[in-house]
Amino acid sequence: MKKRKRLSEQEYIDGVLSGDRVTLSQAITLVESALPSDQLIAEQVMSAVLPYTGKSIRIGITGVPGVGKSTFIERFGHLVVEEGLKLAVLAVDPSSQSGRGSILGDKTRMETLSMDKRAYIRPSPSGTALGGVSARTREAMLLCEAAGFDVVFIETVGVGQSEIAVKGMVDFFLLLMLAGAGDELQGIKKGIIEMCDALIINKADGENIEAAKRAKREYANALHLFPIKENTWLPKVMTCSGLNGDGLQSIWEMIQSYKEKMINNGYFEKNRADQRLNWMNDHIKYLLESSFYQNPTIEKSINDSLTDIKSGNVSAIKKARELVEIFIHQIKMDDK
Amino acid sequence: MKKRKRLSEQEYIDGVLSGDRVTLSQAITLVESALPSDQLIAEQVMSAVLPYTGKSIRIGITGVPGVGKSTFIERFGHLVVEEGLKLAVLAVDPSSQSGRGSILGDKTRMETLSMDKRAYIRPSPSGTALGGVSARTREAMLLCEAAGFDVVFIETVGVGQSEIAVKGMVDFFLLLMLAGAGDELQGIKKGIIEMCDALIINKADGENIEAAKRAKREYANALHLFPIKENTWLPKVMTCSGLNGDGLQSIWEMIQSYKEKMINNGYFEKNRADQRLNWMNDHIKYLLESSFYQNPTIEKSINDSLTDIKSGNVSAIKKARELVEIFIHQIKMDDK
Repeated sequence: MKKRKRLSEQEYIDGVLSGDRVTLSQAITLVESALPSDQLIAEQVMSAVLPYTGKSIRIGITGVPGVGKSTFIERFGHLVVEEGLKLAVLAVDPSSQSGRGSILGDKTRMETLSMDKRAYIRPSPSGTALGGVSARTREAMLLCEAAGFDVVFIETVGVGQSEIAVKGMVDFFLLLMLAGAGDELQGIKKGIIEMCDALIINKADGENIEAAKRAKREYANALHLFPIKENTWLPKVMTCSGLNGDGLQSIWEMIQSYKEKMINNGYFEKNRADQRLNWMNDHIKYLLESSFYQNPTIEKSINDSLTDIKSGNVSAIKKARELVEIFIHQIKMDDK
Repeated sequence: MKKRKRLSEQEYIDGVLSGDRVTLSQAITLVESALPSDQLIAEQVMSAVLPYTGKSIRIGITGVPGVGKSTFIERFGHLVVEEGLKLAVLAVDPSSQSGRGSILGDKTRMETLSMDKRAYIRPSPSGTALGGVSARTREAMLLCEAAGFDVVFIETVGVGQSEIAVKGMVDFFLLLMLAGAGDELQGIKKGIIEMCDALIINKADGENIEAAKRAKREYANALHLFPIKENTWLPKVMTCSGLNGDGLQSIWEMIQSYKEKMINNGYFEKNRADQRLNWMNDHIKYLLESSFYQNPTIEKSINDSLTDIKSGNVSAIKKARELVEIFIHQIKMDDK
């Protein structure tokens, strides 16, 4: 690993606000850092740029492996930049935690988009704590906004907890699907529907077109079985082809129309307000855990009883409570 | 909601250890409770039953919606109980967090297995904190073991963080897949392969058989591109039909052979030892967060500044640090 260049707090702030991409990348690396000294600077930088954030439309894009996310984002991203907008793409990929990317290599992902000066692509951090991924992604997103990006895509894989985390930081959540073998209605879960603002059937090209149209009808019918959401938006079902671009313009227009409606009915701001509260809570968890594990007495105590914990000689939850009590005692002692 | 009946600590312990299913269910509800008084009893119950845990084989089963998990578990579960073993099935389903189950209803899931006296099926808790799901699932699993179950299935949906959490508590991780439209190799991620011990192509029946066999060959070839895992086990690729039962016996034998090999090479115990340490760390996080949010001063301080946090007038991360400092100050004051 190349040694990271450290900038001053003001250099980070000025660089990000002036839209300098090198500094933007360095600032994202800073917020991803686990070092307490970096964390403090990161918080200062975030607080300083915060007034310049919030102006982009934040779009979450998810779908299981094989659904064609990279191709979709590549094409859809081109459409966005051709509209004269600056686009940032952030990837959250917990599945590549212990490795990196797909078998065929991630180097070829979004090849043309990554060459486009109007787009900024930030690959997912790897080897990091699970809880932290989403917190850092949120901060990366805000840094991109402060750097002047008009649209942020947050890409995530699968349908699980990472999606719930991403849903907690975007304005619009888009689920990519494939036309399957007739079990669309079986597989689709209420929670997923409640989470997404649009269901897009990808790969609607060539001999898949008919199946995609059929799937679209089935989903659209199924959606009517659900109670109306708080924001009164009925998730849209559309087909598209990431390969030849069919349907992408309509998806972009639909997102524009969603944004307009949500701003008018007040949900857009309400949602962002809730998200700010979640952000605070995520950061509280992060701070509590770091101060716990960085406490030297705790570190020593864990090391001393590691064998007993691992062998099961002591109960893991009993030991956990004991350690938290030691931690609290330590805090009290600090004062004396 | 029916009012929950509270038992004494000893009643929970005796009931679980005697294999009483009503008490087992009540004990799982107890560990799922967020009430501090329940937590303390739950910890006592868990510590008391801990010496009687560890004897089952713990199998994680995952796959995206539509892959046929319920049908697979129904059939595979029957095979397990026909072997004379007692089976517990626990479901972790973050996607149904804001709702419950699939459109067509979860009532019909695993219908015959749920009627079988040799099987115990525990549906997923809903509306709970994300981080908590996995912690509780681990404790539910241990309670099932203490109640005498020989095999535990932990079912989860999608491929994301919940899988990583489940991987952290099972001995064997099985990924169900479908034969797709040739993009198997594109979609499969290194992280998923590194996580799973077997890739099972489901729905290998009727006109799908050839496609399933082809997919199996492709996956098996791809797996050879990966470095050998620490436990020297090369993930197996197999086909099966949850519908007609084809291939299930071979899967069960493969899991037996895995267990034997891992016990012999020491990995089985090493993996469980690491999992015990994770359990402790999960519980530490849980305790830190509960003592923070249950602190009356913190509660009041959050309420007082809620408007400012939500509007963005104060920086969420600045406020987080401030609250953590108040919390630490509070702990110090307690002593005086």
